[in-house]
Formats: sequence, structure tokens, C-alpha cells
Amino acid sequence: MRPRVGVVGASGYSGAIAARLLAGHPDFELTFCTSDRFASEAVERHLAVPTSLTFETNGSALALAETVDAVVLATSAKVSAELAPAILEKKKHVVDLSGAFRLATSGDYSKWYGFAHPAPALLDRAHYGLPELFGAPRHEDVTLVANPGCYPTAALLPLAPLLKAGLVEATGIIIDAKSGVTGAGRQATEEMSFAEVDEDLRAYRVLGHQHTPEITRMLGRSAPEVRLTFTPHLLPIRRGILATCYARPRSGTTKEQVAACLADAYAKTPFVRAVAPERVTIASVAGTNHARVGATADADVVIALGAIDNLVKGAAGQAVQNLNLLFSFDETAGLGHLQRIAP
Amino acid sequence: MRPRVGVVGASGYSGAIAARLLAGHPDFELTFCTSDRFASEAVERHLAVPTSLTFETNGSALALAETVDAVVLATSAKVSAELAPAILEKKKHVVDLSGAFRLATSGDYSKWYGFAHPAPALLDRAHYGLPELFGAPRHEDVTLVANPGCYPTAALLPLAPLLKAGLVEATGIIIDAKSGVTGAGRQATEEMSFAEVDEDLRAYRVLGHQHTPEITRMLGRSAPEVRLTFTPHLLPIRRGILATCYARPRSGTTKEQVAACLADAYAKTPFVRAVAPERVTIASVAGTNHARVGATADADVVIALGAIDNLVKGAAGQAVQNLNLLFSFDETAGLGHLQRIAP
Amino acid sequence: MRPRVGVVGASGYSGAIAARLLAGHPDFELTFCTSDRFASEAVERHLAVPTSLTFETNGSALALAETVDAVVLATSAKVSAELAPAILEKKKHVVDLSGAFRLATSGDYSKWYGFAHPAPALLDRAHYGLPELFGAPRHEDVTLVANPGCYPTAALLPLAPLLKAGLVEATGIIIDAKSGVTGAGRQATEEMSFAEVDEDLRAYRVLGHQHTPEITRMLGRSAPEVRLTFTPHLLPIRRGILATCYARPRSGTTKEQVAACLADAYAKTPFVRAVAPERVTIASVAGTNHARVGATADADVVIALGAIDNLVKGAAGQAVQNLNLLFSFDETAGLGHLQRIAP
Amino acid sequence: MRPRVGVVGASGYSGAIAARLLAGHPDFELTFCTSDRFASEAVERHLAVPTSLTFETNGSALALAETVDAVVLATSAKVSAELAPAILEKKKHVVDLSGAFRLATSGDYSKWYGFAHPAPALLDRAHYGLPELFGAPRHEDVTLVANPGCYPTAALLPLAPLLKAGLVEATGIIIDAKSGVTGAGRQATEEMSFAEVDEDLRAYRVLGHQHTPEITRMLGRSAPEVRLTFTPHLLPIRRGILATCYARPRSGTTKEQVAACLADAYAKTPFVRAVAPERVTIASVAGTNHARVGATADADVVIALGAIDNLVKGAAGQAVQNLNLLFSFDETAGLGHLQRIAP
Repeated sequence: MRPRVGVVGASGYSGAIAARLLAGHPDFELTFCTSDRFASEAVERHLAVPTSLTFETNGSALALAETVDAVVLATSAKVSAELAPAILEKKKHVVDLSGAFRLATSGDYSKWYGFAHPAPALLDRAHYGLPELFGAPRHEDVTLVANPGCYPTAALLPLAPLLKAGLVEATGIIIDAKSGVTGAGRQATEEMSFAEVDEDLRAYRVLGHQHTPEITRMLGRSAPEVRLTFTPHLLPIRRGILATCYARPRSGTTKEQVAACLADAYAKTPFVRAVAPERVTIASVAGTNHARVGATADADVVIALGAIDNLVKGAAGQAVQNLNLLFSFDETAGLGHLQRIAP
Repeated sequence: MRPRVGVVGASGYSGAIAARLLAGHPDFELTFCTSDRFASEAVERHLAVPTSLTFETNGSALALAETVDAVVLATSAKVSAELAPAILEKKKHVVDLSGAFRLATSGDYSKWYGFAHPAPALLDRAHYGLPELFGAPRHEDVTLVANPGCYPTAALLPLAPLLKAGLVEATGIIIDAKSGVTGAGRQATEEMSFAEVDEDLRAYRVLGHQHTPEITRMLGRSAPEVRLTFTPHLLPIRRGILATCYARPRSGTTKEQVAACLADAYAKTPFVRAVAPERVTIASVAGTNHARVGATADADVVIALGAIDNLVKGAAGQAVQNLNLLFSFDETAGLGHLQRIAP
Repeated sequence: MRPRVGVVGASGYSGAIAARLLAGHPDFELTFCTSDRFASEAVERHLAVPTSLTFETNGSALALAETVDAVVLATSAKVSAELAPAILEKKKHVVDLSGAFRLATSGDYSKWYGFAHPAPALLDRAHYGLPELFGAPRHEDVTLVANPGCYPTAALLPLAPLLKAGLVEATGIIIDAKSGVTGAGRQATEEMSFAEVDEDLRAYRVLGHQHTPEITRMLGRSAPEVRLTFTPHLLPIRRGILATCYARPRSGTTKEQVAACLADAYAKTPFVRAVAPERVTIASVAGTNHARVGATADADVVIALGAIDNLVKGAAGQAVQNLNLLFSFDETAGLGHLQRIAP
Repeated sequence: MRPRVGVVGASGYSGAIAARLLAGHPDFELTFCTSDRFASEAVERHLAVPTSLTFETNGSALALAETVDAVVLATSAKVSAELAPAILEKKKHVVDLSGAFRLATSGDYSKWYGFAHPAPALLDRAHYGLPELFGAPRHEDVTLVANPGCYPTAALLPLAPLLKAGLVEATGIIIDAKSGVTGAGRQATEEMSFAEVDEDLRAYRVLGHQHTPEITRMLGRSAPEVRLTFTPHLLPIRRGILATCYARPRSGTTKEQVAACLADAYAKTPFVRAVAPERVTIASVAGTNHARVGATADADVVIALGAIDNLVKGAAGQAVQNLNLLFSFDETAGLGHLQRIAP
């Protein structure tokens, strides 16, 4: 019998894609989806997946968790922080798409997310689910996977190997990232209306985005004392992130070395591929769970780029990848068939 | 001394452009703008026009009307229907951008706009301000201009001359129109978010759009017993409308005749130009007060196309054109310098 | 052993998607791809499909055809018209994506495609591969499938059932269709550059598009004496077609009847679904082999809409669907997993 | 009598806008436009400007130069490098939109532009026409204005004042810039087709763009020993550049200081305005000759942003601004009325 999985918050963009991927997954069985917005309506109607499920209310998530082996939380950080501990107590695995278990201390949550974390003891225990860098989540008695943020995924993939190899300095790192609109989730605001976003580009939350401490913390696994600047921009596209990262080269670092470093790091990963910097494009990965990374250098700078689909490798696809690894299925199960959107 | 004009509702897209055009107009003086949203803030900050005005509240519109020669209403049909009569009583001209004075009877308003019209006596008196077809508004003691809707402008310009010349039948007319998102005004809805509109196209209010009776009524001035079907579509662009119109040819009508008919009709109009059908494009007019029209035919059908910028010739620009004519200024004053957006 | 298939012209948009779909197909084996442009390069690099094939030259297509059971031609009509007969002589099935075998007579080809057809005898023999309307291609000794054009697919699906049911008149039909840019294939022209297409909409080949006779011919299977007008427009999107079709209702036709007619016609088809007209959107089908159709009516008109992805249901996906049927596999094999692009 | 001006290369995007601006200019008279592509055709037809001129061939540019007071060159760097000296010899002013006179040495041209400069003696003499930083071009006997590149304009405006004020270090500067497609001029390549650019973002010419030495040289006027990295990206929009610039703060530099520095620098300039970083958006300036700049800082970094319309402040508008200053007209003449495209 296939392991059973449910998705809480399945009407948001990431949750919907998680539900679609699981509904078509050969090794898991999707057995519930919750959404207050669509409660009691057919999942098939809204998600265009072949399933006879109807949406349950979000309030029933905890009760429904009893009936499955693992739960995907596509909820806000605040809701996830409350819900995950309760589900773990029921001895069910949790893969959380929010930032609720990605930072180090409860103080970080007060500062960056604006709420007091209700379960700070879990912060150390959560597995940061970026398999190419940090391996598969261990299938413990019960596992909590903190699924990485979209911007952190796009930035960590090109930067971490270079930092670990000692090719770049750990301070003075610049991450200039650009994201399509779905990174912000479903929005009913004038700011995100087509008339305001189309033909525009702007930076936002300059020096204040909550993914800054997440990237800093996780880069810190490759080198001590990381200091970085992260600037997100809003692109007039639906899906995809390009992170253009700048670091100071250690003495003697060459462009051949940085290119080789990434090629080696991802030589055997099914989803991440090292290519020339100009081929690290959003169009080449959007729609898929793939990432592209690339790097070059001169005497002044190392430039490392990463591109992903923010909803797939940056959210739902990576969640399924983590579930695959957690249950010892093929890492690409239910993901390999995804075709890129670009013709 | 230049005539003084005020704009009520100057933070909406059409109202903002009306304010910008009037602020830079050589012959009018913009002396007030109202907007509850931006009340007390500098107009220059929000509209990027060189003026020292600050936004007044909408509630002060009637009092402010005392201080000007003409008022542009960029308000909802319901608000305009209340406000216009009160301003007219103060002996001030009104150019109303809404649909409040475009239909024939109070019954039409109950049916298509969903409110009981408070001043049905004004419906006959209002001048429908499409100068190329219906001439300049007369400068009476006090004049009410019903500024045409964006879709009606795009459809009437190519169709009316053909109908008047007897080249097409008055029944069975099809208007398949496509509009950029600003036609719907400022929107804070998920439906109009970039993520939902981008890379999509859809028809909306099929057989139920409130511009249907307006087009029917105004085409009725060119031929009796007009019957038409109007289908609007939402385009993933910011500005512009293309109306593709189909009519049954009268016996013997040739493509040369329909092309010549439009060329003649607009030979001397500064803003409307007849071109080949494939050159009736949104990009050729967006940003300007110009319209392009074109027509061709075969034995089965006459195809007539019209393209405008919905915010300019379809709203604020046409309002200024009407004001120019009302005050006997050059028809193109304050409008001729507008450059198309397309490079 | 799985049937072997090759794709000729696999670097164009449709050919590339055909190759991707076949590379991931559970029941077929993709054994060759040709492309002069990418000759000798790895297919995986260009198409992002897991295969060890390298591109062959187009000139080797006929020789390679010997080695397979069926060939997909993603070539121009002129090339297909030459190549298909030669492949059929080798007793291999052909699915041709071009218009080379969709019209009735060699005179049609001189008129609409500008070349003298080299194999007019095949025109009657070709199976027009729109399975929902005309059934599965018979697996004869050797079968030639004329895969429908993208516009015809989008227009025939909503119109044919209404015509067959006698709910609309066969004359005076209007098809106002709007397509994303990939309908024109790979383009290196200023006209199709981003700067010229973005934020624009235009009609093209008005009264002269080569899909007109194809639609007329195929609608003619549902009613005699069809007369129609077809107007294509170029949309600033990558993928998708919306066809808005207008027909005159037969006396007494109601909106309930037309909606029910489409619902019945497609009640059991896996890829076509009847919905309300406003839900017939490009975003709901782009990326998939699905089509949506919808219809409504009043006393003057029947409006029927169809939406497809021009590259999938309008080209490569339908080709795979035809191959599935030809080889008696499940109609959805290799297609059901495709996810829509819209989040 | 108004000074007479001609535009060489008036069918490219920048040249066309220069011609439009000059045709509507109150103080200049546009007396010729050249374009091989449109030779002998009406300028009005192609540029939508009210003029009776017809396009002349490019080959007649030198002869036509005799008849005017100043010539705008919208030609390639190689052509400008040949043509400008010849025109100057005729004692006519030249404003050159290309990069032909922006670098320091003929060696720079061999390296970055790939040709041997035919008139290196002019490199020192050319006035770099960024008036807000370097003042008005002097009206000498005859003046050569090197009109700044689009990327340099967007980057120099926010960076130069900070550097000059000693608030940032001169080395380790990062300029991450994003441009709409018109920056590349008219293109008939697959790479710039809508299907390839839409919904994508990519970096190009990484560590190799020819604007790098231009920015370095001009920043060098504010501080010695500038070292910088410049990375351009291609945005799926038509018009506009956003440059996000990073520099290391000098000890003690505060965010208040950097904001005040820009506010002071541009307090009296008509076209450049300092705002908060999040308000430095492409939409706020596209269509106009305005630039927005903004800056903030923390202990690690100073972030300075600049936004312009690449075709206006980044090319044709700035050329007109330079002409205004050269002839002692109001700096904003013929430019102040331009309205932003964003509704």
C-alpha cells in the first residue's frame, strides 16, 4: 500500500501544485486537501487533477492528519508553527513549505516574522530540505522537514559549493534576486494587479526581507562568519527566480575553478545542472523541478547564478523530492515528467 | 484668463490621466483634483504632473465646482448620476466619463447598471461626446457631455460610417472586442492580479455587458433597427482596445467601397485615421488620442476594425477633446503632443 | 517491444514538443529526431528530455523511416507533401503536423499554400485526426494522419456539435480567433520580436488565412453548404488559442440547448470539457492536451468558444493522441500527466 | 529662426524617438531624417509625427549636414566614428547616441567595440552629455556631444554623488542592471523573438559588456581608482532600465547620509529625483525623460538604485536635453510634456 499524504492549504499556488504532483505521483496516495476557500468543492474542478476528493476545511487538518503518513503544510509561517508540533505529536511526518522552521532561534521569528515562535525546541530538530546540499531527511520516528524558501534555494545552490571550496570570501556577498509574481502567493491587492506589475521592475523590502537570515544561516554551514546582502525584485512574469550572486574571490581563484567547482558539485544530482552563466535562465527551468547554476570570475569578483521555478524547485516540487527521499523512493518519482513551459 | 477645470475622482486611471492632460494644457487651468484615497497629499507626487495642488476629498466636489468653469467627473455611474445634476444647477459644464448619461431611459439603468437613475430628464439633454461622429458639444448656458465608453468608441468609429452609407445591414452585427486591463479601472482583486491575467485571454460578461445598449443606441443614429452582439475579452496588456466588427454586406458592397467609406469619413479628422485592416493595431495608437480604423469585405461579410487607447481616446483624452470643442479651442490642444508608447 | 517512432523537424516548437512527449511516453520508443540546425548535437541538450539520441539531418529522414513504425512530420506543408508519400511507400505510418493533407483538392493547395501538390491522390485517403469529432484513425496497412491545424482544432470543437445538431445555421458563421506567438513557429523576424509584439494586438491575413478552407471543409461534415469567415489575431502570449465563434441560431434555439449540446458531445472525451463561456480560458488549458468549449445564445446569436494550447492539443499533443489511437493504446497515454502552466 | 537639426538613422528605436521629439520641439526645427530602410517614404507614416519630410538615404547624411545647425547621430559606433569627424569639419554640432566617443583611448575601442577608432583625437574633446553630473556642453565653435549609454546613465546617476561625497569605497562596486528589450535596438533574431524573451530573465555578456569601461571611466571623475563589476540582464518588457548598485560603505556611513546625499545632489535638477529605494521603479519613469534614484545602507553595504527609460533619458531624450543646453534653451523644452506610460 502506498503511503498516504495530505496537503493543508491546497488552494494557494504552492499548495495546489503540491496537491497536483501528489495526485499524479506513482508512489504516494493523496488522501486529503484542505482549503477554507473551496471547502466542500471538488478538488478536480479547482486543481485540474484526476481525483475524487473534495476540499476539507483547514480546521479539520489535525483530525485528518491522523489518517495519513505525512502532511504537507502550505500554510503561513504562523499557522505552520502551531500546526506542525501538533501533527508531529500524532507521529506523522511533516513537510512545511513556510519559513516556520528555517531560522535558528525564537528571537529570529520575533524579528523577521513578527510572531513569538510557539515551539522553538523544534528549530534545531527540523531538517532543512535542500537535498543537493544537505542530503536526504532521515526517516526518523517522525521527521519535520523545513522546506527551503524559494529565494534561498536559488541562491544557496550556486553559492554554497563555492564557499565550501574556499574559492570565495564569506563576507561581502551580494545576492541580487528577481522573482516572478507567484512568489508572493495569491494576491488580491492593487500592488499585485496586472496594471501595476506589467512592464515594471522594482526592488522591495530592501535590506529587510525575511529570507536574509535563512540564507545567512544555511550558507553558514559552508563557512563561518558569513555576511551577505540580499535584495529581492518583482519581475513581470508568473513563475521563476533568477539569483545573481556576487562574492569576492579568494586570492588566485580563477573562472575555470569556479565553473569546475559547480560542475563537480552537481555532477550526479538529477535536478541541478551547472552550465555557462548566460544559460542560467528562468525559461530553461520554469515548469520543472530543475535548477540551473553557473559561475565565472575575474580578479575582482566571482559571479554565481541560480535559476529555478519558485513554485516547483522553490516550493512544491522540492517538497515532493523531500518526501521521495524520506520514504526511500526514487528521488525523481512524480517529478521527472514535468516539462518546461518554454516552447 | 484661462477657463478653470476640476477633476473629481482623480486617482483612478482615467481621472489621473485627465488631470495630467489638463495640468499640461495650454488653454485650461486645472484648479482642483479630488480623491478620498490621496486626500491632502500632493497631486504631483501621485500623478507626476507639475502642479502645486493637493488632493481634496470627493465630498468637497460640489463646493469646489463653484470655483471652476467645468468639471470632469471620473466617478462611478451611480455617483456621476447624483453629482452631475447638482453641478449643472450651479451653472457649470460637466464632462462625465461614466455611463450615467449615455443610455436612453431610466429603465435602461435599472437593467444594465443596477440602479434607479436619479435624473432621467437629463438623459435626452446630454451630448454624446464622440466628435468625429456627432460633432462638437454646443456651448449652451450649461452643457452636459456624456463622454463615450471605451468599447463604444472603438466600435462606433469603424461601424457608424459603413452603416450610414448603407453598405452593411443593420442587423446581425458582431463586435468582438479585446481590451487591456486598465479598462476595468484600479483593481485590488485576485481576478485582476498579474498571476491570473498574464498569458491568458478570456471573454467576460458574455451577452451581458453594459456597453451593449450604448453601442446599439448610438449606432441607431446611423440606421434604424440596429441589432448587434458585443463580446468583450480581457487582454494581458495595460492599455488599448481592438474591436473586430463583422456585418453583413448590402448587395453589391465591395471591399473598395468600405475602405473608401472610412477614408472619406475621417479624411479631415485630426485623431482618426483609416488604414488597411492589418495596420489597425493597438501598438500604433496606445499612449495617444488617436484611433485607427480599417475595413475590408467579401461576398459574405464586411470586417471593420477599430483601435484606441482605452484611457485616452476611450476616456480622458476624448474628455479633453470635448472640452476643447466646448470652449472653442483647437480640437487638438493639449493632446497633439502625446507620443505613442510603442518604440 | 514498443513501437518505434521518429520525429522529422524536431527543433521547431511543435516538433520539439512531439519529441519530448514521445521520449517520455510509456508505450512508444522515440528512436530518431532530425534537425538540420542541431544536426549531430545531443537531443537532450536542446529538448531537455532524457534521451541519448543525437539529432540527425533532415535529409536522412527517409532512410531513418525504414527503422521505425511511424513517423511524425513537423515540417512545412511543402516538405511534408513530398516526404509523406515516400514514407508511406515504405509501409510506415505518418502523422503530419502540416497542412499538406488537410484540404480537398490540389487546386486548394495552389490557391492557399502556393504550391502544386505532388500527391493529390492522398488527399482523400488522409485521416483528419481530430478524434473527438471524427474518431480514431484506422490502423490500416499504412495510415496517413493529417493532424489538424491549431486554429481549426479550437474552432471545430465548439462549432461542429452545434451544427450537427441543427441548432445553428450553416452560413454566416464568424470565427474570431486569437493565438499566442508560437503558432507561427520559430521566428527570426522583426515583426515577431518582443518589442513589436508586446502590449499589442492585431489581426493578420484578414480574409486570407489558409486555415479558412480547412475549417470550412471539416465543418462541412456536420452540415452542407457551410460558409464562414475566419479572422486570426496575434496575442502577446507564448502559448494558447481562444476562438470566439458566432453563428445564427435556428429558430427556437435556446442557450440551454447549446450548452447541453456541447456537454453531451464531450461527456466522455478525456481531453475536451464543456464549461460556461467565461471559463473557456487559455490559462485553463495551456500546457496540456485539454480543450475547453462553451456556448450560450440569445435570439440573435449563438456564441461558442474554444480554448486550447496551440502546441499541444493544437499540434504535438494531438499527434500523440492520434498515435495512441492508431496503435490502440490508451488515448491519454503519455499525455495525462501534463500540468497546466497557470499556477 | 529656429536652429535646424537632422537625425541620421531615424528608423531605429532611439533615432525614431529623437526625430519625434525634435518634430514636436518648440525651439528646434527638424529638417531631415535619414533611413535606408524607409528611404523616400513619408516620415509621418513611420514615426507618427506631424511632418512633411520624407526619409533620405543614410548616404546623403553628410551632404544634408551642410543644411543644418546640428546633427543627431543614431548610428552604430563604427558609423558614428566615421561620420562625426566629417560633420564637425563642416562646422556643425554633433550629438552622437552611439558609444563612439565615450571611451578614453583607441585601444579601448579595439578591445570593447572591435574596431580601430578612426579619430582618436576627438575622444578627449567630446563632451560626455550627462548634464546632471557633468554640466551643460559648452557651445564652442563646434561641439561634439557623446550622449551617454543607457546603462551608464542608470548607474552613474545614483552612484556618482555617493562616490564624490566619500560615502562609499571606490573599489568592489557591483552594478546589477536589468533592461527592457529596446536597449538592443530593432532586432530580427530568434533570440529576441517574443516566444524566447517572454516570461524569461537572463544575464548576458557577463563580465564582457562594452558599457563597463564607460561607467568606470565616468565614475573615475568622482573618485580615483574605481573598480566595478557590471552585469546586464534582459527583461521581458519593452522600455526601461533598473540598475541596482552595491558599494562598500566608508566607515561610519549611515543610511540617512546616503539618502541625503542623493536628495541634495538632485534637489534642483528638473529630470532626476531622489526617492526611497522601493519607489525607484521602471514604471514611474518609462515614457519620460525623468530618472529616479534612491539609496540606503547598513554596516555592510550601500545600495543605490537608478531607473530610467532607456530610449528617453537613456538615449533620445537626453540627446534633446543636451541640444537644449547647447543652444541655451530651457533644459526641459520639448521634453517636459512627456507622460509616463504607466496608468
